[in-house]
Amino acid sequence: MVPGAVDVPSGLPAAVDTPEPGDPRLARLSLNQATVKRWSLTQAVDGCLRAGLPAIGLWREPVAETGLAKAADLVRRSGLRVSSYCRGGFLTGGDRAAALEDNRRAVDEAAELGAPCLVMVVGGMPDGDRDLAGVRERMVEALAELVPYAVERGVRLALEPLHPVFCADRAVLSTLGQALDVAERFDAEAAGVVVDAYHVWWDPQVWTQIERAGAGGRIASFQACDWVVPLPADNLLGRGMVGDGHADVRGLRRAVDAAGYDGDIEVEIFNRQVWDADGDDVIATLVRRHVQHVL
Amino acid sequence: MVPGAVDVPSGLPAAVDTPEPGDPRLARLSLNQATVKRWSLTQAVDGCLRAGLPAIGLWREPVAETGLAKAADLVRRSGLRVSSYCRGGFLTGGDRAAALEDNRRAVDEAAELGAPCLVMVVGGMPDGDRDLAGVRERMVEALAELVPYAVERGVRLALEPLHPVFCADRAVLSTLGQALDVAERFDAEAAGVVVDAYHVWWDPQVWTQIERAGAGGRIASFQACDWVVPLPADNLLGRGMVGDGHADVRGLRRAVDAAGYDGDIEVEIFNRQVWDADGDDVIATLVRRHVQHVL
Repeated sequence: MVPGAVDVPSGLPAAVDTPEPGDPRLARLSLNQATVKRWSLTQAVDGCLRAGLPAIGLWREPVAETGLAKAADLVRRSGLRVSSYCRGGFLTGGDRAAALEDNRRAVDEAAELGAPCLVMVVGGMPDGDRDLAGVRERMVEALAELVPYAVERGVRLALEPLHPVFCADRAVLSTLGQALDVAERFDAEAAGVVVDAYHVWWDPQVWTQIERAGAGGRIASFQACDWVVPLPADNLLGRGMVGDGHADVRGLRRAVDAAGYDGDIEVEIFNRQVWDADGDDVIATLVRRHVQHVL
Repeated sequence: MVPGAVDVPSGLPAAVDTPEPGDPRLARLSLNQATVKRWSLTQAVDGCLRAGLPAIGLWREPVAETGLAKAADLVRRSGLRVSSYCRGGFLTGGDRAAALEDNRRAVDEAAELGAPCLVMVVGGMPDGDRDLAGVRERMVEALAELVPYAVERGVRLALEPLHPVFCADRAVLSTLGQALDVAERFDAEAAGVVVDAYHVWWDPQVWTQIERAGAGGRIASFQACDWVVPLPADNLLGRGMVGDGHADVRGLRRAVDAAGYDGDIEVEIFNRQVWDADGDDVIATLVRRHVQHVL
């Protein structure tokens, strides 16, 4: 092992050698841009290439900063696969027309970037609203309006169930089973689901729901991230480096694979300490943790 | 209405008159002691009597401060029903024997206090543990050891599913359905479930699981509390006054009633602003909110 290599943000000594570019163990590993939030798109692409990662998950904001056409060209020339495009959704507010228009733009961008799917964080409950069932129904209606547009452009909507801690403020889609109930209203090519370890690890039904998702060809994306305690004051930023917490990421990866998923394993970590660390150190750590805790 | 009455902690003007002692709308309303955490048991009992609440939910710590025998006598003489005793559990750590011994003491106390049930917060995952299924199985094994002792003393174990945000650190029992799967391993007299609005409001399956719980005679306790955003830094203290958040407490109360529950409606709010408010003002607010948002 490289003497002195240290995992971030834990500060623990690296437990394994860092796989080199070309190592077959990296064949499905993707860096979600949100993990290196301070990097521009160019920096993130270069970081992936230096570390030998074959894929990247893109976000709208840094793509917009670079400019869509330039971003698409940059990614295409890099040879990196685009594993997902984050994100659409937020369909549950008062102005559905504006939300749908924004989602159509996101679909257009995903198509131009060559992203196979648009990750959908569907939105939470309006202020003062207590009718969760009603909000969920309106969310499905809005999705139904968006689906034909996405299908025409070859972009699959990847419905992401978020941990129930986010039900009120970010996503009324709270379990994998519920996400499948919604996705199955549409063709499998039109609507899949995201299996994000952080969001689903606690669910007693996750194993049977992963089987169901696989059987229906619905697994559009698998994301790796860990649940660490305590949550920070801003609970959006509570996600841990894989291996630092309680989620059985390897078990979930095995389950999606057994269910027929052979796509990318995208590492998405919202965490201020991770963001404050050097991007190359972050990637080196997640590459090691991929070997230790995911494969 | 009483001019100038103000709800706490929102500071909003009271929307309804405060029901007086003897008002039939208070017939099932219980004050969980944790809602007035700064009050001693004597103060909490007196507060209930002043406001005309017929029941109280007790906690081990303030009971111990008063002394068990004195506490039992105080509550008996007050004429208040004991709606629940909080709490047992924490069965998932390394020392099961010590945990079980502590739980047997809690059962003894519940019996002496005349509490119909002991609320069980089953415990989270040990440090570094990623085997959630294994932890859950050990939790069930420990419960199976405790059940005969509780049955002999006439105390029902009330298994409380906690919101999944607490899965790692407080309770690996995360949904009502999962709690019923566990409870149904034992006789209905031995093991029931708690339906706490704060913990279950987000669950797409909660309505069918409440029906199931009622059909099996498993609803041991109903607790009222609201989900407010954002969560505070200490997410244990994020519970809101009923009516201040997004949980459909009335819908849940109607559902448990329709499922055959006719027991107390216990208000349990962990919230620093509530604790910092005057206890009588807290009770006056929750009495008003009971009329506005629960009945």
